[in-house]
Amino acid sequence: MRALVFDGDAQVVEIPMPRPAEGEALIRVLSAGICNTDLELLRGYMGFKGVPGHEFVGLVQECSNPHLQGKRVVGEINCVCHTCQYCQLEMPHHCLNRSVLGIANRPGAFAEFVALPEENLHIVPNSIRDDVAVFAEPTAAAFRITEQISISSDDRIIVLGDGKLGQLVAQVLYLRSKQLICVGKHRWKIELLNKLRIATALVDDPIERGADIVVDATGSYEGLSRALELVRPEGIVVLKTTVTHPTALDLSVPVVNEVRIIGSRCGPFRAALEALALGNVEVRPMISETYELRDGPYALERAAAEDVMKVVLHV
Amino acid sequence: MRALVFDGDAQVVEIPMPRPAEGEALIRVLSAGICNTDLELLRGYMGFKGVPGHEFVGLVQECSNPHLQGKRVVGEINCVCHTCQYCQLEMPHHCLNRSVLGIANRPGAFAEFVALPEENLHIVPNSIRDDVAVFAEPTAAAFRITEQISISSDDRIIVLGDGKLGQLVAQVLYLRSKQLICVGKHRWKIELLNKLRIATALVDDPIERGADIVVDATGSYEGLSRALELVRPEGIVVLKTTVTHPTALDLSVPVVNEVRIIGSRCGPFRAALEALALGNVEVRPMISETYELRDGPYALERAAAEDVMKVVLHV
Repeated sequence: MRALVFDGDAQVVEIPMPRPAEGEALIRVLSAGICNTDLELLRGYMGFKGVPGHEFVGLVQECSNPHLQGKRVVGEINCVCHTCQYCQLEMPHHCLNRSVLGIANRPGAFAEFVALPEENLHIVPNSIRDDVAVFAEPTAAAFRITEQISISSDDRIIVLGDGKLGQLVAQVLYLRSKQLICVGKHRWKIELLNKLRIATALVDDPIERGADIVVDATGSYEGLSRALELVRPEGIVVLKTTVTHPTALDLSVPVVNEVRIIGSRCGPFRAALEALALGNVEVRPMISETYELRDGPYALERAAAEDVMKVVLHV
Repeated sequence: MRALVFDGDAQVVEIPMPRPAEGEALIRVLSAGICNTDLELLRGYMGFKGVPGHEFVGLVQECSNPHLQGKRVVGEINCVCHTCQYCQLEMPHHCLNRSVLGIANRPGAFAEFVALPEENLHIVPNSIRDDVAVFAEPTAAAFRITEQISISSDDRIIVLGDGKLGQLVAQVLYLRSKQLICVGKHRWKIELLNKLRIATALVDDPIERGADIVVDATGSYEGLSRALELVRPEGIVVLKTTVTHPTALDLSVPVVNEVRIIGSRCGPFRAALEALALGNVEVRPMISETYELRDGPYALERAAAEDVMKVVLHV
């Protein structure tokens, strides 16, 4: 089959079909989304080599579960062992033996076919288009915040970052509190949120401090320091971006202000699919460009460009 | 009156008596404890000048409340306005207009007399000696953790730091869970905890990772990184030390592991006094040396020495 392979650079090559293990399904990929994590992997994050891609929608080609056979599905990315201490403690996303689709020890979805455990799959409602369904994974990551902290309609929320994840987080949290503002660097990006009636500001605009909740989705190592300036005492800072660049922090600020800083990663697919189906989260305006898999290397270049948000691959 | 004054260096000088404002009591100081924060202030932390000292016990000399007159008291250090947004939200320790005894905008207790709002005072049970009562403030700070997070007897806890605060935190959390180990650099310090049956390790000893709760009371900018290595996914790291030294952190670790990092500062005096009165927290072995106020500068030198834990000033 054809696949986009990272090995120092990115190339489209012929590789063997994946061979599903027991309990796994073989899925024919229809569309896949390029995430910033993919760009990080290409730059060397986690020493990744192989087929990336963890946002996809596809058709189940082979599986043992008759309810899934032939269905259009999206898939959770953490493939877990069910036996380690964290699986036993019902924290499967932190499974000690996990592989992660297109990120760690498991070939991803930038390919004609991908294998995933059947238990990871969710059937996609017919009302959700392919290029919307690829947003299930990052939308679920945004919903993760609502599992980790309780948000009331009175809470004043600041989302830092107007990129793909920042916009999804802003839309998801806006469902809980209208007292939300998203702060970004790009006028054209924040205007997408304005069309959804979500308040925005540019990074140099004055912003009222003392927010109850600040989410750092900047993708930058400076995001946390800014979040700590903006959050109220005993408030919550949610970290949504994985930055490996060492971050210099004055830790006296969160201690004196007794701030809670919470790391946040993968989330609930059901909530994401429901929001996408109902249009509670609107992702189509975020799709900047669409390419065929064979143009994957160019698609990656475009995904890294300043004037682009989501790039979708058709497979 | 005589007082120890920081102004570049530390000197004992004659200064005017404090004049209590309305609602404040004048207190004759009996004993005061030297805290690491005092040593930080002397090195320039917060640009402090004036009389330091925020751990004390004294006799109420003048006040409008007849129940307090003549009583032996300890005092909460945050003096608050009752009108700002955080006071209204019942977070007085985060009052926007607060002064902090011996730390910010209020002369401290390394003096013959000190003034504090009557509402800050707690009468000390007779069973608590003066040199034990000076531990009320840091013991309250240790109890703060139990207000911020719920701790079950199953929780595996690691306390990093064998200094005064680390030992108090270890003792207080040991009341909630016996699955606790305190990690320190000094054999003679951790042996004090062993006498209380609390498990300890030296920093270079192998320690089992995956703790439910890790408290950083190292006073070092390296503490948080170590805590993040030791805590389990979705576990809690409590930051007890205010380090202004910029700390270089790999933030991808807490995000991927969805760790919760919680800053923690001042705590409940009643819980602290009860624990000190009942002997649930044992502080006397931590008292290394005692000096008269007039020997304050030398006492500060000694408090900074490697072979010393708590230094108490008799006034």
